[in-house]
Amino acid sequence: MSAPLPVTLHFNATVTVLPKEGVLDPEGQAIERALKGLGFSEVETVHAGKVITLSLTAADRAEAERRVREMAERLLANPIIQRYTLRIEESA
Amino acid sequence: MSAPLPVTLHFNATVTVLPKEGVLDPEGQAIERALKGLGFSEVETVHAGKVITLSLTAADRAEAERRVREMAERLLANPIIQRYTLRIEESA
Repeated sequence: MSAPLPVTLHFNATVTVLPKEGVLDPEGQAIERALKGLGFSEVETVHAGKVITLSLTAADRAEAERRVREMAERLLANPIIQRYTLRIEESA
Repeated sequence: MSAPLPVTLHFNATVTVLPKEGVLDPEGQAIERALKGLGFSEVETVHAGKVITLSLTAADRAEAERRVREMAERLLANPIIQRYTLRIEESA
């Protein structure tokens, strides 16, 4: 008997990258001013960042999360000035 | 007796803006190539967009959502080429 084939699952990951607390955020400030200028006076603070969505294969959710975290730390975020959050979902 | 004061609640909103399906996404493609070049061969597709987080006051969650949707449509997203999603949470 042959060994069972390794199962490959599909995942969707969302990496959200925002400036760390205390780091200058000129884009967020510009959006805040523009919103107030449009009459959205109820707005208090605004921060702007980027989002990366990706699909990938992995043996299981733990491996998907580990790999996406590695991608975030090596390429997607700059840990000196940015913080990131991950969301991983298994896809069909 | 005087009328009760209107209650003002605080909310945190996250607006995620991504290219619509079929719209060119050169930043996503560049990240995809870079990830594969770093050895993340399990990556399939990548899309890049922006995220705006903001805090605001509103009478209730429905009003907060209505106002943030208006901000997205008037300033934060370009509905011709971008789609957006909202997440609204009441804050302390």
